Amino acid sequence: MKDSGAIFLPKGFKFASVTAGIKASAKPDLAMIVAEGAASASALFTRNSIVAAPIEVGRESLRQSRGKLRAVIVNSGNANCATGRSGISACKTVCRQLARLLKCNPAEVFPSSTGIIGVPLPVQKVTARLPLLLQTAGSSADQLRQFANAILTTDTRAKLASVPLRNRQAAITGVAKGSGMIHPQLATMLVYILTDVEASASELRSSLRKACSDTFNAISVDGDTSTNDTVLSLASGASGIPLQSIKREFEPAMRAVCQSLAEQIVADGEGVQHVIRLRIEEAKHRAQALQIARAISHSLLVKTAWAGADPNWGRILAAIGRSGATVKPAKVSIRIGEQLVCRGSVRCAFDEKLAHQELSQPESKITVRLGNGRASLDFLTTDLTADYVRINADYST
Amino acid sequence: MKDSGAIFLPKGFKFASVTAGIKASAKPDLAMIVAEGAASASALFTRNSIVAAPIEVGRESLRQSRGKLRAVIVNSGNANCATGRSGISACKTVCRQLARLLKCNPAEVFPSSTGIIGVPLPVQKVTARLPLLLQTAGSSADQLRQFANAILTTDTRAKLASVPLRNRQAAITGVAKGSGMIHPQLATMLVYILTDVEASASELRSSLRKACSDTFNAISVDGDTSTNDTVLSLASGASGIPLQSIKREFEPAMRAVCQSLAEQIVADGEGVQHVIRLRIEEAKHRAQALQIARAISHSLLVKTAWAGADPNWGRILAAIGRSGATVKPAKVSIRIGEQLVCRGSVRCAFDEKLAHQELSQPESKITVRLGNGRASLDFLTTDLTADYVRINADYST
Repeated sequence: MKDSGAIFLPKGFKFASVTAGIKASAKPDLAMIVAEGAASASALFTRNSIVAAPIEVGRESLRQSRGKLRAVIVNSGNANCATGRSGISACKTVCRQLARLLKCNPAEVFPSSTGIIGVPLPVQKVTARLPLLLQTAGSSADQLRQFANAILTTDTRAKLASVPLRNRQAAITGVAKGSGMIHPQLATMLVYILTDVEASASELRSSLRKACSDTFNAISVDGDTSTNDTVLSLASGASGIPLQSIKREFEPAMRAVCQSLAEQIVADGEGVQHVIRLRIEEAKHRAQALQIARAISHSLLVKTAWAGADPNWGRILAAIGRSGATVKPAKVSIRIGEQLVCRGSVRCAFDEKLAHQELSQPESKITVRLGNGRASLDFLTTDLTADYVRINADYST
Repeated sequence: MKDSGAIFLPKGFKFASVTAGIKASAKPDLAMIVAEGAASASALFTRNSIVAAPIEVGRESLRQSRGKLRAVIVNSGNANCATGRSGISACKTVCRQLARLLKCNPAEVFPSSTGIIGVPLPVQKVTARLPLLLQTAGSSADQLRQFANAILTTDTRAKLASVPLRNRQAAITGVAKGSGMIHPQLATMLVYILTDVEASASELRSSLRKACSDTFNAISVDGDTSTNDTVLSLASGASGIPLQSIKREFEPAMRAVCQSLAEQIVADGEGVQHVIRLRIEEAKHRAQALQIARAISHSLLVKTAWAGADPNWGRILAAIGRSGATVKPAKVSIRIGEQLVCRGSVRCAFDEKLAHQELSQPESKITVRLGNGRASLDFLTTDLTADYVRINADYST
């Protein structure tokens, strides 16, 4: 699993964070990104049909501003979801007040919220802190790290990834939060990807879609898709380098940033002890590979076996069978690490101790070969531990 | 939750069980039902596309024998699944040897297996015990209870349900096992429903299908559909009463037996502390209600909240949203017990302590109203506890 590593700061952005008192823990819970000029912006949102107020407001704002943003305002500790009209109104109030301070259009302020569902957003606590956020905003790596820290909920660590572009003349840097309710359907969790290349909103969108498809859309912690998932990409243009002129460097860099953040999210999954790199090979098409990967990674019996480092491949086979995908049992094989444990849906002689050792590592690899076609997929998922239950059995109360 | 209660024995059946040494625990693991004459038989099987050897053999036998059976032979401790051609051959050997002892056609012996997937069935251990099974078979209620006990795996108690018919001149009695991998798609687990009414296989099938649809198909413990699910119904005809003559009494009785067994299975779910009666109202159609009930009952976040008796209805709402069903958020309401906690997808003022108390009961009721149509569904599900993880993190090793 990649470490956050060195941060390359894209020019043209400032960061700030404060404690607004939304979290009971008194940890930082309000954070802001300001684009010094207006940045091009593109976002992907959750496919959950129940969406939080900031998703509705943010989507509409991007439409109105035609993909231009001056600021992003994020609170943790409260999802502002299932809060009805007053939730929408609270979200708009926050954007409007920040816009007034920035002397910009309210549609140029993009809102995000993460935390508990169904509790009214304490809007006064948020607006009271906006002036302080603006006063303390700065462009240092420390301030970016503090931003990354303030957007966390049950996460145990901040998640950043950064790649320099054209010999450090520009950069692409991402920040994410996410630990539970991780089963993205299009976008995921809260992710902000900043760059100082010059790009239109639609150029940015095209790169973002490609990058998310194999990264955030190929992970699962607990099979629950959040109501607040957002991936937002901002391009300040401050480097003066057009995206089109470095597209062949930019797109792999964007993908690397997304992949690193996706891996950090999975590794920090609630209660996770083992990360599983699940590879699906020889599927009919990518959608089939994804359907099977999700069925396996959503199976409680598979996930609990992984928690015990138990090479119980029969449960994996059963999950493939109930996935809804049309598979030919006679062609299905399963590997744990390098060992073949099942061929043609039948047990192979294998070294169980070795398989147990493999699964006892913090990260291990399981490969399912379907013999159905040529599509393959790398999917990142986790075990399910008693700690996950403990964390989630006592969240709202 | 209904207790097993009194047993009304359908005439024409004998039962036996022994320890064959398949389970490491030395508990009984081989059991038999013999129909003294040939009984009419109808079965429903798992929809998992990976199926165990006894499913393949049993399906083919019922076809060959045109719905007539002399015996059912069940082993626990080994699923005989993912065992390939030698698994099929092992299963057929067991049926053939029992048929020889009974002097009947091998297709009149119906096999079932339950336990770990992917381990060869110790066929010698099974066949060696067949003579003893036949010698000790008898028709007492105790022997039926011992049968019910010998087919268990992680279950903590035997599951029986029984209803007398026509003033005890006949009866319908069911036996089931099931505790994990419970998310039936058509049939479920191992269930045997015996009656002494006179019925053809197709008459029996029609009653069985109706009874299963709202009972076994409306429960979920952990969202995993087994590879070995079987519901088998046998009619000995020994009462001399034709099913058609008491259809109005028979079908509700069959349903009551299925419902009671379904409830017993859920209540004995692995690690279960709380049973939830989930009611979906005003769905567009039954399929939509089922899709939503399954999404809710399959959500780790919802299930862990229930483990903590946490009235976190936001997670239920998020699960409805990601179910794939088209819902109108403005019309969705949720009740915990009698209390409305969410209306129009927005929080209501409610008494959290009371909701917590309600969810602290061994059994509680949650109602989701969709405002989408007229279909409703009662679905039975469970919480997810740290004990579930413990039970399943150490099963095969």
